[in-house]
Amino acid sequence: MTLTNPSDVLSALIRCPSVTPEEGGALETLERFLSELGFTVERPVFSEDGTPDIENLYARLGNDGPHLMFAGHTDVVPTGNLEGWSHDPFGAEVADGMLYGRGAVDMKGGIACFLAALARLTGDKGALPGSISFLITGDEEGPAINGTVKLLEHAAKKGESWDAALVGEPTNPNQLGDMIKIGRRGSLSAKLTVSGTQGHVAYPHLADNPLRVANALAAALLDPPLDAGNERFPASNLELTSIDTGNPATNVIPGSVDVTFNIRFNDGWSAETLSAEIENRLRQAADALPDRATRGPARYDISFQQRPSPSFLTRDDALIGTLSGAVKSVTGRMPELSTTGGTSDARFIKDYCPVVEFGLVGKTMHMTDECVALSDLETLTQIYERFIVDWFQAQEGRV
Amino acid sequence: MTLTNPSDVLSALIRCPSVTPEEGGALETLERFLSELGFTVERPVFSEDGTPDIENLYARLGNDGPHLMFAGHTDVVPTGNLEGWSHDPFGAEVADGMLYGRGAVDMKGGIACFLAALARLTGDKGALPGSISFLITGDEEGPAINGTVKLLEHAAKKGESWDAALVGEPTNPNQLGDMIKIGRRGSLSAKLTVSGTQGHVAYPHLADNPLRVANALAAALLDPPLDAGNERFPASNLELTSIDTGNPATNVIPGSVDVTFNIRFNDGWSAETLSAEIENRLRQAADALPDRATRGPARYDISFQQRPSPSFLTRDDALIGTLSGAVKSVTGRMPELSTTGGTSDARFIKDYCPVVEFGLVGKTMHMTDECVALSDLETLTQIYERFIVDWFQAQEGRV
Ligand SMILES: [Zn+2]
Ligand SMILES: [Zn+2]
Repeated sequence: MTLTNPSDVLSALIRCPSVTPEEGGALETLERFLSELGFTVERPVFSEDGTPDIENLYARLGNDGPHLMFAGHTDVVPTGNLEGWSHDPFGAEVADGMLYGRGAVDMKGGIACFLAALARLTGDKGALPGSISFLITGDEEGPAINGTVKLLEHAAKKGESWDAALVGEPTNPNQLGDMIKIGRRGSLSAKLTVSGTQGHVAYPHLADNPLRVANALAAALLDPPLDAGNERFPASNLELTSIDTGNPATNVIPGSVDVTFNIRFNDGWSAETLSAEIENRLRQAADALPDRATRGPARYDISFQQRPSPSFLTRDDALIGTLSGAVKSVTGRMPELSTTGGTSDARFIKDYCPVVEFGLVGKTMHMTDECVALSDLETLTQIYERFIVDWFQAQEGRV
Repeated sequence: MTLTNPSDVLSALIRCPSVTPEEGGALETLERFLSELGFTVERPVFSEDGTPDIENLYARLGNDGPHLMFAGHTDVVPTGNLEGWSHDPFGAEVADGMLYGRGAVDMKGGIACFLAALARLTGDKGALPGSISFLITGDEEGPAINGTVKLLEHAAKKGESWDAALVGEPTNPNQLGDMIKIGRRGSLSAKLTVSGTQGHVAYPHLADNPLRVANALAAALLDPPLDAGNERFPASNLELTSIDTGNPATNVIPGSVDVTFNIRFNDGWSAETLSAEIENRLRQAADALPDRATRGPARYDISFQQRPSPSFLTRDDALIGTLSGAVKSVTGRMPELSTTGGTSDARFIKDYCPVVEFGLVGKTMHMTDECVALSDLETLTQIYERFIVDWFQAQEGRV
């Protein structure tokens, strides 16, 4: 095998069954490859009560600035039902030009391409005009508590600082070159508990049905929409995720009900302003309830997620332009600059340096038969190679 | 003990732990007492797949008409937390003029009073000018499948017919003499299942959240009210009893949700017209949903209870007048003629003869420390005695 071939690197990584929180040999393998390229590699383990210990990796090549970070994760989601797979999810089998395996696109493939790009650059042209580091966690698909957040703190405490970061998540919906992510919406979950008074359905005046109240409060959460989006972000959106009562008796009015929901919000909101808006909507809906004269005010409790994800938007036009240019020059396509979709660890990195995201095609991520086209691996390697060269050049121009 | 003393009879019945479906010795005891008074007693057992076998009792005194039925049940609801009781729930202890025990008012007390009334009448005055029968089930508090329905069919098949029936349920909210029940609302339960498409909360356009649809459909069930009631019946009322999703993942839009509800309906509806109204409301609400252009019509399924309870109203003014008159002459109070509250086995009896309900004060029914005032037992016995005499007299007048 050769490190300049991304499919060789990816195959080695796929064969390590690194389902969160298992390291599975994936970071071990990556450490060996990076060491071969001359990186100084560290493997810190982080732990916290109530969560599994997680292995992570931080590696740096070069001592001087400018300093570019490549970030990602080697952990993968479970395979799900094995019968749905036509290839061994940890076999890295190739068929019809596709390489199959869990993590092929999310995101061992992105790591393999960036590593192959570096192997080509350092092999051909000797030392880089600055430093490159790999910040790789084993806890992106899990609770994300013992991963990127702590790895960044750990490195920063040791004096590390970065001028820019590229996250290798699969950002392209359909084809390589579709989309760069330049920001992400935030995420806030919450649980609303409505309390009432249990009683017999034949005597509703002696009871207080919390489902009637919950129905009105949930309607107020859903409507009107939180916003219409802006030129940088899609609209914020609230989804009810579960309503649960657990009352098996058809003749009993239940005593309480739980309503959970999640909001994906754009840069028009912070978790704080959004919580205030939710509390305000609930209060207004509760105040507007009819028939509360004898029952008193509706009783409910709202608790918000302890560690919401903030939204962020990268405003470094040079960084975005360099990446877009690399994509265009290799694929001939100008990628869309997007802030759609879920959260990623970029939300933690943005506190340290400007961050953009670009990787493989995400279509099969988290699904059975996750796979990547061998041609996409080669194309992404060329894009990353172009980006690294152009980025260092742009940095020189800045100084 | 003497059968003319209702508290003696009630104490003996309370000491039989006849929690549904257990006979607990209660029908055995009642059979002994009725035999002593000269009744011919039958103890049919009914069974059906999926339900416990249930013991029942049918007893008749006299061979000729007119024929008055007294109906009720010896089964009782569970005691609940024993620590909540200040007296043994099956001990029939007396304290401060109150007799304590499960079933004291619902409705071993009513049975004891009617039996004592008969003991007084037959002891004092010899034979009745007609027949009286006891139709007593052990399955009123349970599924009510192997009880009154089958007991009525069984007796009717053997040639029994009745001119009127009195059910001894505790009909008085606060004081003896408050209320006679001359009808009951019907009851219809249903389960609404709304189906959607599971997906990630960050990609709501790829999913179809059934909770959003369910919230709109539930609102349409709740509003506007089904009716405003009429001079005979209170308003029909729908209560949501449970909404259940069971989705533990805060970042996942669930695939389906169940909404169960129960309707208590007056004589403006049958189970059929009501089901049609519900289906109509759901259809209209589903059609009015916004944002279904790409998702297609909302998908939901509604299933109604297999054996709904019909509503009924007794229109026999002579029967109602005789009972009201007896209550007034003993207590000095004119009882309200009501159709409020839950269902009772009177809903089955109304298919055979006019039926009214009057018994003890229901305040403590189904609760810890269920109890009855000794003075109420004596008063109710006198009311029943008066009613029996007056009813037979009125029947003579009719012939
Ligand atoms: Zn990923
Ligand atoms: Zn009862």
